[in-house]
Amino acid sequence: MTYDPTNIFAKILKGELPCHKVYDDDTALVMMDIFPQSKGHTLIIPKAPSRNLLDADPGDLAAVMPLVQRVARALKTVTNADGLRFAQYNEAPAGQTVFHLHFHLIPAYEGIAPGAHASGRADDAELAALAKSIAAQL
Amino acid sequence: MTYDPTNIFAKILKGELPCHKVYDDDTALVMMDIFPQSKGHTLIIPKAPSRNLLDADPGDLAAVMPLVQRVARALKTVTNADGLRFAQYNEAPAGQTVFHLHFHLIPAYEGIAPGAHASGRADDAELAALAKSIAAQL
Repeated sequence: MTYDPTNIFAKILKGELPCHKVYDDDTALVMMDIFPQSKGHTLIIPKAPSRNLLDADPGDLAAVMPLVQRVARALKTVTNADGLRFAQYNEAPAGQTVFHLHFHLIPAYEGIAPGAHASGRADDAELAALAKSIAAQL
Repeated sequence: MTYDPTNIFAKILKGELPCHKVYDDDTALVMMDIFPQSKGHTLIIPKAPSRNLLDADPGDLAAVMPLVQRVARALKTVTNADGLRFAQYNEAPAGQTVFHLHFHLIPAYEGIAPGAHASGRADDAELAALAKSIAAQL
């Protein structure tokens, strides 16, 4: 399996497509998932090109984790979630739909089954407000 | 939320309880999940005490990722899986059941829905054989 540089996250990283950006630096972009599995579903996307965990540079994988933690803490504070799922999918049978390495942080709320609130594309104004709140908390 | 040192993974790390060990070093233990969500479900457990991603040392989080990648590659080869899910749960509403930081690698197989093969405790002989095969491939 090889990296296809025309994937949608590569286009977002190049600025060719818009996103609800939370944060970025030289190594990674943090943005809201526009098809959230729950309120606050956030993606952390290393900028280096790799298809997924299997072909990534080990140093890039290590470098992103402190940022993942910072985003997790900020996200939990902003959403007041009762828990967080951290997930990353490798290849289509595992649920990968965009073939540029990315990590999910999916808030969990007491009494709501995971995925129960997945209902298509989220409202842009709500995503923009969430992105701003999480960024302020980082 | 604080770390409870009597959790089952802490007992395994201290050698007070057995496991189907794949690998360990100074920083982490790799073992088979005895309640696999699919064939080959493997856990990577940092040895440093933390409850989950939220309270872990950022350096410990970074350090474990190259090992996660090595295990992912070995696991995919051994099981001939079509994909892999990488996951980590924070707090009970997100699915965390043991409150010592651990990462899941869950093989995905074409045509089998994730979790469809979860059926209670796995056979010890099968787990032992898998652990040995993955260790040999690391």
